[in-house]
Amino acid sequence: MSANSPMEGFEVFPTRPGFIRHNGGIFLHCERPVIGMHIAEEHLNPLRIAHGGYLATLADTAFGAVLRRQYDLPVAPVTVNLSVDYLAAVREGDWVEVEVKVHKFGRTFISASCELKVGERLAVRANGIFTVWTGAIPAIA
Amino acid sequence: MSANSPMEGFEVFPTRPGFIRHNGGIFLHCERPVIGMHIAEEHLNPLRIAHGGYLATLADTAFGAVLRRQYDLPVAPVTVNLSVDYLAAVREGDWVEVEVKVHKFGRTFISASCELKVGERLAVRANGIFTVWTGAIPAIA
Amino acid sequence: MSANSPMEGFEVFPTRPGFIRHNGGIFLHCERPVIGMHIAEEHLNPLRIAHGGYLATLADTAFGAVLRRQYDLPVAPVTVNLSVDYLAAVREGDWVEVEVKVHKFGRTFISASCELKVGERLAVRANGIFTVWTGAIPAIA
Amino acid sequence: MSANSPMEGFEVFPTRPGFIRHNGGIFLHCERPVIGMHIAEEHLNPLRIAHGGYLATLADTAFGAVLRRQYDLPVAPVTVNLSVDYLAAVREGDWVEVEVKVHKFGRTFISASCELKVGERLAVRANGIFTVWTGAIPAIA
Repeated sequence: MSANSPMEGFEVFPTRPGFIRHNGGIFLHCERPVIGMHIAEEHLNPLRIAHGGYLATLADTAFGAVLRRQYDLPVAPVTVNLSVDYLAAVREGDWVEVEVKVHKFGRTFISASCELKVGERLAVRANGIFTVWTGAIPAIA
Repeated sequence: MSANSPMEGFEVFPTRPGFIRHNGGIFLHCERPVIGMHIAEEHLNPLRIAHGGYLATLADTAFGAVLRRQYDLPVAPVTVNLSVDYLAAVREGDWVEVEVKVHKFGRTFISASCELKVGERLAVRANGIFTVWTGAIPAIA
Repeated sequence: MSANSPMEGFEVFPTRPGFIRHNGGIFLHCERPVIGMHIAEEHLNPLRIAHGGYLATLADTAFGAVLRRQYDLPVAPVTVNLSVDYLAAVREGDWVEVEVKVHKFGRTFISASCELKVGERLAVRANGIFTVWTGAIPAIA
Repeated sequence: MSANSPMEGFEVFPTRPGFIRHNGGIFLHCERPVIGMHIAEEHLNPLRIAHGGYLATLADTAFGAVLRRQYDLPVAPVTVNLSVDYLAAVREGDWVEVEVKVHKFGRTFISASCELKVGERLAVRANGIFTVWTGAIPAIA
């Protein structure tokens, strides 16, 4: 397997020009509420481990991709709060997976959490509060 | 002023190859606990506003840059938790500034918060818990 | 001044039977977005400092009392998330004040933060996300 | 079973004079990382549902009781941050259980989360960051 091919069961998550595409894109599992990606040099901080901002990005993207598919939304929900716990380092070359659990999909807000793992090792946990986007949606670029 | 020149009082924050440099770098104010940057297309989400992950990255980077300078640390502290509140959208072309306040620099942990503004408009608030890095530091790339 | 009288500028915050009254009540400043109270033995943890749960209660109560008055709401908003940073100990006999700042009062959610101080010493910071209660309101007990 | 007797498998958690005892005490499961308690009138807010501050107290107490037993600590760890998501109301008379998961017990900090349920219904989720107390411990009152 080349460094950029998805792991089995994942497919490329379609992106528009912007932050996720600029940082290498992600893969979405075809069935499970999970995204995956490879950590490359462009994701590292000066200590040569994955930057906390990129890991927060993965958590936020996992929430959006999973919620959008699971609830058939036209766009990802709006993030109101994202809280990220950094538990262990993630390194260049690691294949990481982020699994989402939805705790409440209510009338006024959505609550979900996720775990980012490298194999069986838990590296990051995140918690999010979201609302459904009700504004206009830009035409696809 | 060109789109990439820093606002007055800011200087380019030196980066190594990695996530911050790949996403366009930042500016650090010469005196105030503030970083600044221009929002470009590569920072946007599909709604054509700044991606929550990039805004989280800016908050985390502001904490690191300010804490490192203010407490004369060899590297930015390790982020234990980063909690981000998204209050208003940030758009392409905006010059944003993130101002850090340190609430505690204790023996076991550091507590700080920051506000990200576009002009006078508050767009993001973040809260962080950090510990001082005590491990080895990779040689500069 | 007796141990139970309010500090100048505060008045007793009216309570119904329930958690706040059972734990001694609070005072609300007549003008500023601030509540105050004395820490008594019944608020302590086994280390003989104020229990983190009581301090979280004060933060939540401050948010509710201030938001209700400031936005003329029939009841305190519903707390969606409350995040509390514990920075320093609070002791029996301390008079503590909690000052609230509202960052956003939007169509779908409210964002606010507060600082709990003993004199000038910052002991607790909290951040909250709320929604306006739209259900029925029980008759006053 | 009377309103104050523990559910099967739980025993009274010993308390000193202070906040937990004043609010009716809790039960700790003999084997599982779970505390339980009955919601009484003194735990309610003006909407006649359990006060968010009391639910935060239960989360914090669950973390402390479980971590102390599981890692054989002389006192509960110090809470650095407690973040609480309120998902559903808890009512007078409800028997609630709070189950703790420890995600990291590291050299500098501990990360744990918990779920508060009434039967199978998830009402509250909380996330905590803690450090081990290294100071003096007051003599038992």
